[in-house]
Amino acid sequence: MNSENSIIKFLQASSRGFIGDDAAILPPISSGNRYCITKDLLVENIHFRTTYYTPGDLAHKALYVNLSDLAAMGAEPSYILCGIAIPNHLQNYAISFLHDLTDQCESAEVILIGGDTTAATHNLLISITAIGQTPESNIKSNNMAKNNDIICVAGNLGFAHLGLMGLEQSLVVDEKYIKSLLRPEAKIKEGVWLGKQSAVNSMTDISDGLYANLLHLVSQSHKGALLDLNLIQKYLPAEISLQIALEGGEDYSLLLTITPESFPQLSHEFSQIFGYELKPVGKIIAETGISFTQDNHIVNMVIHPFTHFGEN
Amino acid sequence: MNSENSIIKFLQASSRGFIGDDAAILPPISSGNRYCITKDLLVENIHFRTTYYTPGDLAHKALYVNLSDLAAMGAEPSYILCGIAIPNHLQNYAISFLHDLTDQCESAEVILIGGDTTAATHNLLISITAIGQTPESNIKSNNMAKNNDIICVAGNLGFAHLGLMGLEQSLVVDEKYIKSLLRPEAKIKEGVWLGKQSAVNSMTDISDGLYANLLHLVSQSHKGALLDLNLIQKYLPAEISLQIALEGGEDYSLLLTITPESFPQLSHEFSQIFGYELKPVGKIIAETGISFTQDNHIVNMVIHPFTHFGEN
Repeated sequence: MNSENSIIKFLQASSRGFIGDDAAILPPISSGNRYCITKDLLVENIHFRTTYYTPGDLAHKALYVNLSDLAAMGAEPSYILCGIAIPNHLQNYAISFLHDLTDQCESAEVILIGGDTTAATHNLLISITAIGQTPESNIKSNNMAKNNDIICVAGNLGFAHLGLMGLEQSLVVDEKYIKSLLRPEAKIKEGVWLGKQSAVNSMTDISDGLYANLLHLVSQSHKGALLDLNLIQKYLPAEISLQIALEGGEDYSLLLTITPESFPQLSHEFSQIFGYELKPVGKIIAETGISFTQDNHIVNMVIHPFTHFGEN
Repeated sequence: MNSENSIIKFLQASSRGFIGDDAAILPPISSGNRYCITKDLLVENIHFRTTYYTPGDLAHKALYVNLSDLAAMGAEPSYILCGIAIPNHLQNYAISFLHDLTDQCESAEVILIGGDTTAATHNLLISITAIGQTPESNIKSNNMAKNNDIICVAGNLGFAHLGLMGLEQSLVVDEKYIKSLLRPEAKIKEGVWLGKQSAVNSMTDISDGLYANLLHLVSQSHKGALLDLNLIQKYLPAEISLQIALEGGEDYSLLLTITPESFPQLSHEFSQIFGYELKPVGKIIAETGISFTQDNHIVNMVIHPFTHFGEN
């Protein structure tokens, strides 16, 4: 493509000398620490639309959805590699994206160490690989939930989905919901802090919706969950239904399970440090799957998987 | 997409338990060793066509173009992450691809530790991140070429390009050229061995063509190159022109520069171990850019950048 060389030159200039070799070398890591690696793809018209994502929004999102994965492991972000496939008609958009991405990496204290730039036939595609590091003892898997653990959420539920509905269906919704979708706040500091707490048994981020991510977490742990709809309802603004709170993806809140005896102290410290509450929403049980209670009765809810634009 | 869950389940089952968390943890690395990381995108109808790449061909190529990058640094491959964006009409193709990829990882003694699966609107896209390891002292950059270094090639020139011409233009070409394109042999063992040789000053792989990759190497080294067309010609089968040898990409041969005094001994050992010759093709000079000699005269050649299917 015409601008591939200029994009590569720009990336080289922006990347503190790491790009230009066939592969990037990771610096030695302190003894007892571990590198942690994740990758997420963002595909135009599957995950985002250039009609309402500015290049800066997309750069923010591509970066932070990956940093959110690291946070969910208790890891601090260190490096990214950026792959980008660019259709001809979006070359200027892509160049702005890369400028914004390098700026945002700098703000996040993350170093862009490599990547790949190529042409695409139809749609823009972004593939970020993010690398973080964490003391081995802080790593939080999503397969370590224990019976009676309190299930908690750090962050909002359904905000990004309401933002998506607003944009896709031209509904009037508050700006904060739009921002939750376009510029999600990954809970990086929270993830690192929660990683240090031995009472946190398991953790993941809510990318696919509370229900879907919790189901994954309890399945990985060979447990089940009892969600208290009254508790969840309590945290929701009037315009967000229980259904949206359970199904809506892309909030990038953290979902974690905590030993019950430690919950009061830990949740107190959390709100002191981060200025908002950890939200308990249920507990881990031995019986697999997810059940719901409302007013102390077991109730049924039909959950639809979250999709962005109706793909299935 | 319909089969995303089944693909994820399959990947989990195939990945020795690493997939299922938000990020993968890299094991501790021996003291003095370094992790080395690269990523390459393969986009349908930019880099490959499903009409003549079987899923197994594509799996081979996606894996080995990345392992070739590691080899060019002197690193042994250890892990990959696989991102895949799948259009509806290629779901079965993608599932075969993932089966073949996991088989080929096993053969290459590489562990699939994570990835991301998503829908795509038009074209299949594969994004592999590969992680290798090497003693720090073995790392070969492409910015360390020295004046008078002998420029050598380990592997063929123009074979893959002739294969591509055969497939794209329905020409009759020998099967070995087709195979060079569809199932390139990354020079993994050679890269690791050459990494250990202190007389090798710089190394890269030939993904974009001898001329393009050499130009990158000498630019990174702030040097130039004098290529001897008689030497290059000597290695070429009759059906491969000098032009194709210089321009043709995707051979994944290694391109390296060697201290001249050490060349005879090193090249002797190389052919003893690997059963084929290191091919000297020119030398590093102080004047930047690439010049050509033929019959001891400076000659001009016009070089066109390599493209797969005529994109620019």
